[in-house]
Amino acid sequence: MKKALRVVVALGGNALQTSSAISAEDQKRVASETAKYIVDLIQSGYEIVIGHGNGPQVGDILLAEEASGTKEKPAMPLETDVAMSQGQIGYWLQQAIENELAVRGIKKSIATVVTQVLVNKRDQAFKNPSKPIGPFYTEREAKDLAKQRGWTVKEDSGRGWRRVVPSPKPTKIVEEDVIKKLIKDGIIPITVGGGGVPVVKRGLRLKGVDAVIDKDMASMELARAVKADIFMPLTAVDSVKINYGTPNEESIGKIDIPRIKRLMADGHFAAGSMLPKVKAAIAFVESRRGNKAIITSPNNALKALGGDVGTTVTN
Amino acid sequence: MKKALRVVVALGGNALQTSSAISAEDQKRVASETAKYIVDLIQSGYEIVIGHGNGPQVGDILLAEEASGTKEKPAMPLETDVAMSQGQIGYWLQQAIENELAVRGIKKSIATVVTQVLVNKRDQAFKNPSKPIGPFYTEREAKDLAKQRGWTVKEDSGRGWRRVVPSPKPTKIVEEDVIKKLIKDGIIPITVGGGGVPVVKRGLRLKGVDAVIDKDMASMELARAVKADIFMPLTAVDSVKINYGTPNEESIGKIDIPRIKRLMADGHFAAGSMLPKVKAAIAFVESRRGNKAIITSPNNALKALGGDVGTTVTN
Repeated sequence: MKKALRVVVALGGNALQTSSAISAEDQKRVASETAKYIVDLIQSGYEIVIGHGNGPQVGDILLAEEASGTKEKPAMPLETDVAMSQGQIGYWLQQAIENELAVRGIKKSIATVVTQVLVNKRDQAFKNPSKPIGPFYTEREAKDLAKQRGWTVKEDSGRGWRRVVPSPKPTKIVEEDVIKKLIKDGIIPITVGGGGVPVVKRGLRLKGVDAVIDKDMASMELARAVKADIFMPLTAVDSVKINYGTPNEESIGKIDIPRIKRLMADGHFAAGSMLPKVKAAIAFVESRRGNKAIITSPNNALKALGGDVGTTVTN
Repeated sequence: MKKALRVVVALGGNALQTSSAISAEDQKRVASETAKYIVDLIQSGYEIVIGHGNGPQVGDILLAEEASGTKEKPAMPLETDVAMSQGQIGYWLQQAIENELAVRGIKKSIATVVTQVLVNKRDQAFKNPSKPIGPFYTEREAKDLAKQRGWTVKEDSGRGWRRVVPSPKPTKIVEEDVIKKLIKDGIIPITVGGGGVPVVKRGLRLKGVDAVIDKDMASMELARAVKADIFMPLTAVDSVKINYGTPNEESIGKIDIPRIKRLMADGHFAAGSMLPKVKAAIAFVESRRGNKAIITSPNNALKALGGDVGTTVTN
């Protein structure tokens, strides 16, 4: 029997929420669509590990916490909000996948693991917080909050003032051992939700920090840690494009590292959208000989593993 | 080598929150105290599985969601709030325990597993929702909400109107297989948070329901499922009392099933406080020969396992 290929999929926001689907029931419905594509992979014999984002969900949790927080009962900090979003999204995803497995008569267990990701407290990102989160404020409100809570606040493209937090690089998945054992036991792990709860080392202890780890980078770190064969960021488009959104738009099929790096340098990939996926794909492919990264949409995932669609990055 | 005794501990609210400790940092501090007692058990060679409550935390999440929910972006339902609280509390507990293990130089992994618990949709509790949750309303507000959202509302002891939800019996832990594998792998599971996310079967599929499963009963079900030797609800008092709060108050040490049932029938144990723990203890002890249940406080847990303090229920 051929050994099953191990695939780490990183689910983007569109795997759970669309602009018109924001209630819990709506998001569960989107999750149940995503679950079909995931179970297609499982049914085809791939060994699946799931990472996912939490952008809209953690934003909503932050808003709810800020709306209800008082001096006596303060709002939960961002690091705890990330853990809450892992519970929320993990529950939706695991139930959707369990249901799809049950309907197809496949016996397989799945587990959402609350996951911390270690970052370096000397990471340059801590000196220059750049990731806007939470509600918009007036300049006065923002500056008052900055003083009261030690936040960094910035003006956000003419839309108002917001809190900004650091986006440090993931260095190690704290629950790595657990994930590896789950995989060995044939269980599908859901992990590094929202990039993981960012923690730093203080002596021997871990401590949560208010930061946001890019979910593609965290999933890439996961893929490296579990020695995946394929790292697969799933997003809204079927493949990476050059000249995106212009009449000269073109899909990239198979591509090697030197060529995709050149396209990246030429500014073909949008920051905060395709760029982090391409960077994570490059980092994964460069980390071990034979590694492969595929960027595509959830509905094309199975076909893309066969090489028919999607962007496949190899060395 | 003697086989390690398997102990399921059920952590009550006081293991995480005290009336004066309600910020995230406060609750983490309480968790780090609790972690010391848990790690004492691990260090003494017991095999530990952790269940926990979520009363105050899920209450706060409900309040935050109700405060920020709009028609366009509705508040998350209770079942999803439970999953969120599992992420939140699981993160605090696992980090606290990991830190305590690290400080003592013990190499052991721990994993919070988002857990669903199956209930029977024909459970009588669904006909008579009785568990009050969330904010207080005026009669008018309550009745409007009842109409809009299909809630059941009730007047709560002269303090105002509240939503009430069913409290059905747990019948099966959905992630039971995962928990068993983790234990086999030597990993400490944190599970059935807040009694688990209540789900019912609809054909082959699971569906979350807005209900609250008693966390002592869910932890008892967990203890039965993993064939624990000892089930240990940890609470605010060192042992079960008769004539509690009167000059004739007396601690119960070792006690058998017939005697504790008699005391229960005589009304010695307060509903919503000691009664559910005693009921869960009885159910566990009756379920298998040799089973033992110990009710005590976290700081007395290790001594109670030695039989020196706490209330030990045997058959």
